[in-house]
Amino acid sequence: SRNIRLAVIPGDGIGTEVVAEGLKVLEAVGTKVETTTYDLGAKRYHETGETLPDAVLDELRGYDAILLGAIGDPSVPPGILERDLLLRLRFDLDHYVNLRPVKLFPGVETPLGEARPEDIDMVVVREGTEGLYAGAGGVLRRGTPQEVATQESVNTAYGVERVVRYAFDKALSRPRRKLTLVHKTNVLTYAGDLWARTVDRVSLEYPDVETDYCHIDAASMFFVNQPQRFDVIVTDNLFGDIITDIGAAVAGGIGLAASGNINPDRTAPSMFEPVHGSAPDIAGQGKADPTATILSVAMLLDHLGLAEEAARVEQAVADDLVERQTGWSSRTTQEIGDDITARVAG
Amino acid sequence: SRNIRLAVIPGDGIGTEVVAEGLKVLEAVGTKVETTTYDLGAKRYHETGETLPDAVLDELRGYDAILLGAIGDPSVPPGILERDLLLRLRFDLDHYVNLRPVKLFPGVETPLGEARPEDIDMVVVREGTEGLYAGAGGVLRRGTPQEVATQESVNTAYGVERVVRYAFDKALSRPRRKLTLVHKTNVLTYAGDLWARTVDRVSLEYPDVETDYCHIDAASMFFVNQPQRFDVIVTDNLFGDIITDIGAAVAGGIGLAASGNINPDRTAPSMFEPVHGSAPDIAGQGKADPTATILSVAMLLDHLGLAEEAARVEQAVADDLVERQTGWSSRTTQEIGDDITARVAG
Ligand SMILES: CC(C)[C@H](C(=O)O)[C@@H](O)C(=O)O
Ligand SMILES: CC(C)[C@H](C(=O)O)[C@@H](O)C(=O)O
Repeated sequence: SRNIRLAVIPGDGIGTEVVAEGLKVLEAVGTKVETTTYDLGAKRYHETGETLPDAVLDELRGYDAILLGAIGDPSVPPGILERDLLLRLRFDLDHYVNLRPVKLFPGVETPLGEARPEDIDMVVVREGTEGLYAGAGGVLRRGTPQEVATQESVNTAYGVERVVRYAFDKALSRPRRKLTLVHKTNVLTYAGDLWARTVDRVSLEYPDVETDYCHIDAASMFFVNQPQRFDVIVTDNLFGDIITDIGAAVAGGIGLAASGNINPDRTAPSMFEPVHGSAPDIAGQGKADPTATILSVAMLLDHLGLAEEAARVEQAVADDLVERQTGWSSRTTQEIGDDITARVAG
Repeated sequence: SRNIRLAVIPGDGIGTEVVAEGLKVLEAVGTKVETTTYDLGAKRYHETGETLPDAVLDELRGYDAILLGAIGDPSVPPGILERDLLLRLRFDLDHYVNLRPVKLFPGVETPLGEARPEDIDMVVVREGTEGLYAGAGGVLRRGTPQEVATQESVNTAYGVERVVRYAFDKALSRPRRKLTLVHKTNVLTYAGDLWARTVDRVSLEYPDVETDYCHIDAASMFFVNQPQRFDVIVTDNLFGDIITDIGAAVAGGIGLAASGNINPDRTAPSMFEPVHGSAPDIAGQGKADPTATILSVAMLLDHLGLAEEAARVEQAVADDLVERQTGWSSRTTQEIGDDITARVAG
């Protein structure tokens, strides 16, 4: 069987801890994996001033995929590691689909009193390479009473159409075949118009997909009180960031939310990471839940064409989650990883 | 006692229905109110092409306050009524504080299984006159594969500082005295830096207020799984739009969410409106819940210095909500209005 060449970026805080468990599970799958670890993150930044050297970025292009833990530390001013490391990876490797399933597994406790697993089963297709994340903007007269700070959302037909097409394909592959555009067309009229027109036009090629539209404010509300409205969602970079965290909350917490930064054209490796951050407050204590990372590993396997292996990992997680109903909070990061690994191997 | 001069804009859809109940309650309070109704909205737009004529806007400046129902109809392209009527009112009347309490009243059903009233009691101070709502942006090569559409968030020291000061004052007036800035400083680095620096600087003048920071994505999650984290929140126009809808969802639904578009300097009348929209799907059927409008009337009374009257309306709503636990869905818009009116009249 083929050999997966994997670049691993554990990153900061709990990143290292959860990635270790993800790799354990990956090995148990039985596929040959060759991993190389990159020490990018806060520590390297403090020691060398480097976030993502060009040579490293070039090297990363040579892998089949990247597994990332978490990036960010309070010792580094906000934005530096995010922009120059995490977002640079997403942008330069053209991860134009940020794929984030929102799924309530049976047995998982949700803050929603009445939601059942069949009510929360969606996939958010978040645009990953433009919008307000482009970094456009500036500041004039900083620190004075006349200061003006701007941020610009940049949206292109090229960028919107490709992610919308991906979302339609995704919707077509699911039983409900429903795609909802989430935006704020009544206020962000220029960008919203481009998104809405693109969805309308592409929808003509997908007569079997039902399309719907929802403003971001209403969608955020429906995630809480009518999650069953949604199947596949397509949305811009910032709205996708926000609703996938609401999604994580309703589907049992940030400890379970997986994601893939996908380059569907395969011109560069895709990158898989838990939705959660580096959580410096609990780092190094074995308290982090590695499940989100393990589910991200399943997405990685699926992306590499190993659907059976991916399903096996997801099933192992599902089985573990059912058993958590009794006494789950007592297990460490490593114990959860070990238990899921045993299920995958077994 | 003084005579309130009130401009009423019922607007579209359920707007007319809920405003009628709000006015009924207002009259029952016993304060003398002189109302003038303005037919702004979709109907007028279709008949005359007018959204908000300058002469009408000037006239509106002469009132003590404005009560607004809801604006928007699917027959009008997205953005027209929102930008040229609703947002024009907020911007031109300098409603720089969009005040949105998020409060779970006893007896109200929340989708959160375990939340109690003491867990959900916050106030969102949403900036109302700048950010992405400024309407800045544009489109190039519309309708071609080379289209680029931009939206710009404009943030000024002037605009940020005044709303931040209002939020600190609000926090100081509440028992917990906690203020949380919600933004996305790690991605929106220019605007985020201005907001964060402003909160830091102003906080020195409020040593008794505890300040905190939360990214919008994390805050959206915490609204669902740790709402008790928050007391007063200050945030920009778009983030405030989104989290107050999540707030409405967790506090029992959009039918209960009130808001005030406040001009704290009183250079123009403030405007009070339910957070919900015109809901064309249920318009004209007596199905809309007028409670959000009635609570907005309470905010209006409070703004005009009638604290006792405001408290009386809020208490009447609170009492009605406790009784709804049995059979509330059977009442019409008008019946709910009548019942609350009867309680206010006492
Ligand atoms: C860390 C941050 C830049 C990132 C984002 O906003 O995309 C994170 O919140 C996420 O969702 O992966
Ligand atoms: C109708 C729309 C322009 C408005 C907004 O986005 O502010 C509404 O959602 C609100 O929250 O009052």
